Amino acid sequence: VRQSFDLSLYLIIGPAHCAGRDMAEVAMAAAEGGASIVQLRDKASGTGRMVQDARRLKECLAPFGVPLLINDRVDVALAAGADGVHIGQQDMDPVDARHLLGDDAIIGLTVKFHHEAEAIPLSVVDYASIGGVFATVSKQNPDPPIGLDGLASIAATIDLPLVAIAGITRETTPQVIAAGVGGVAVISAVCAAPDPRAAAAELRAIVNGAMAERER
Amino acid sequence: VRQSFDLSLYLIIGPAHCAGRDMAEVAMAAAEGGASIVQLRDKASGTGRMVQDARRLKECLAPFGVPLLINDRVDVALAAGADGVHIGQQDMDPVDARHLLGDDAIIGLTVKFHHEAEAIPLSVVDYASIGGVFATVSKQNPDPPIGLDGLASIAATIDLPLVAIAGITRETTPQVIAAGVGGVAVISAVCAAPDPRAAAAELRAIVNGAMAERER
Repeated sequence: VRQSFDLSLYLIIGPAHCAGRDMAEVAMAAAEGGASIVQLRDKASGTGRMVQDARRLKECLAPFGVPLLINDRVDVALAAGADGVHIGQQDMDPVDARHLLGDDAIIGLTVKFHHEAEAIPLSVVDYASIGGVFATVSKQNPDPPIGLDGLASIAATIDLPLVAIAGITRETTPQVIAAGVGGVAVISAVCAAPDPRAAAAELRAIVNGAMAERER
Repeated sequence: VRQSFDLSLYLIIGPAHCAGRDMAEVAMAAAEGGASIVQLRDKASGTGRMVQDARRLKECLAPFGVPLLINDRVDVALAAGADGVHIGQQDMDPVDARHLLGDDAIIGLTVKFHHEAEAIPLSVVDYASIGGVFATVSKQNPDPPIGLDGLASIAATIDLPLVAIAGITRETTPQVIAAGVGGVAVISAVCAAPDPRAAAAELRAIVNGAMAERER
């Protein structure tokens, strides 16, 4: 049985994103503020460090009931007892990841283009992240952003819970939600904020308001 | 039950090491020549590519009875059905790797210093690779090489099958084996050779000769 999850405010965090602060402290503050799910994304550290970080995050997030996903690394997720993984187009095939992680794990997949959306193996993927919405400083994206129209167009074709990512701010969150996704994924908007708890709380309130608006 | 393995000629291979040739072709030629075990080491590719490469290598090496290990990545080893992993000091704790891979897998660990050799969890590690013997072009090593004396000194303290690594050539192989290890690990000496089969055959003969010499 898949565990339930909530994409409303999807925090992506890594050791390099937290402006020199302790990653677990930032994650806890964000969870307190309203982050509903957390993904550890670390492309630089050794595997040993990643497992240690993931274990600490899992421990810190458990009291909030906030699931922890690991970007790309099924090995880290398995070793740390994380709740699942988030997979990019260059990462492991989601079918292989499901086989290794079992039925309980949450598996998300990033898509940016229609052909990627159409190729999602719906039987093994639990949610999709629609990437490259706006320009971002957090990741090198060789492709141009898809914008709100691109987001809405792709979102309409995917029969899964959806979250949008890339360059999303307080200001753009209402339009992003209106485009047809169930949440926003952020990195620096929370991790680099002077007060991550307050930043998360504010973003979560905006998401909740925009969702209520859309459902009216 | 752990499968048997032979460290005599331990080939490390990666897509960037093969001078533009197909990695699986190079690995097969090496196995034909006498490589006794192969490790896929790829720090650059995405996980999807790594799994594909590992599957192809596994398939190509199986007819030779040559085991395939994956550097660092337990997820890739699991997805590709590789025979085990090779773990560095910054990688996953070998105890965690054994837990994820099960009793059949081969697990090797790199050590360079006496304190690392003393810390090997002998109940879960099957062999040790003693690293940094000579200067090498294959890896950025911030520490100075340990040399033949360092190798002999560390080898004497480890009660496991041993292989030596870093900058080993035909010329130095006899001294390396004489220092007390059961094999040599090479990258460019085989992967970058004009004829990988011949280079492997020559190295394997040198190793075999040096082992016979030592046992006399």
